Amino acid sequence: MPNGASNFVRRIPEGEDRERLTCADCGFVAYENPKIVTGSVVAVDGRVMLCRRAIEPRRGFWTIPAGYMELGETVEEAAIREAREEACAEIAIEGVLAIYSIARIGQVQVLFRAHLASPGFAPGEESLEVRLFAWDEIPWDELAFPSVHWVLNAWREAGSGPLGAPRTNPAEDQRGTRPLAGA
Amino acid sequence: MPNGASNFVRRIPEGEDRERLTCADCGFVAYENPKIVTGSVVAVDGRVMLCRRAIEPRRGFWTIPAGYMELGETVEEAAIREAREEACAEIAIEGVLAIYSIARIGQVQVLFRAHLASPGFAPGEESLEVRLFAWDEIPWDELAFPSVHWVLNAWREAGSGPLGAPRTNPAEDQRGTRPLAGA
Repeated sequence: MPNGASNFVRRIPEGEDRERLTCADCGFVAYENPKIVTGSVVAVDGRVMLCRRAIEPRRGFWTIPAGYMELGETVEEAAIREAREEACAEIAIEGVLAIYSIARIGQVQVLFRAHLASPGFAPGEESLEVRLFAWDEIPWDELAFPSVHWVLNAWREAGSGPLGAPRTNPAEDQRGTRPLAGA
Repeated sequence: MPNGASNFVRRIPEGEDRERLTCADCGFVAYENPKIVTGSVVAVDGRVMLCRRAIEPRRGFWTIPAGYMELGETVEEAAIREAREEACAEIAIEGVLAIYSIARIGQVQVLFRAHLASPGFAPGEESLEVRLFAWDEIPWDELAFPSVHWVLNAWREAGSGPLGAPRTNPAEDQRGTRPLAGA
């Protein structure tokens, strides 16, 4: 999205079939593709790790360690980096738990099941607090995003055995287009 | 990537920790995130559908119907659109077959197993030819990309039963950083 740009317009570049954000001065085409968010449900003795967000959006609400993938990474490396940045945790990835499309905001979320590779965790710069929650302690009304609800349920249903096919969007929001309640 | 842009520089925006492609004139930050490619192994009576590319890169080589996901789509919708555009085929998605990271070029590929939802297919604008191949007819030396090899093998290994956990990068290229041989 433009940041201080006053001269970006939407036009159809030559040879394409849809409008793209284009700089009217220099012709730069800022392709706006969906972005990949990756993260993990990190379980420790049956409890799940949640981080209380220190940044907007949804500051003060709880989420799993997750964030935008960067260039040069694999999805697994990005999930490991996010756990390190947000929860100062070294995790080991077990496998893909869920793939969600959030069409409303152009996101694909690739979410893993993971465990701690070495003990210990602490809030990183983007977290106010990091805690482990037993299932009946999870603060459902204070979760940051619908997909945090979804993936915690996916984790619960998967149990601790081998991971099967990844879960996808729930029936009530198959395209990820429902507005965020209360946000 | 800049297109006709002469004034983009790499600098670290305020509050960030890494260089971003920034317009020196207007301050526009062109975030370069990994892009999502999605597509499908479409099987018809045990044979797989391949398209011979009419466009660069790898014009004349064979690939599965796949391409860049666009904003406003789910991954499944994008895979269905690509089959329609490249092979004039209406497909039904069965599930996720593989998730590959191609770190060398900033791609994540989410690849499905699918079948035809209605009979018939034909080359779309970006294909020279669309054909079904039995396993021993696949033109291995004329496949467009390493991940086409990978996913065809994943499809073969998965058989026709329920899909389990998605395959990931093969051991010999775990990060997707090997150069494309002969391309």
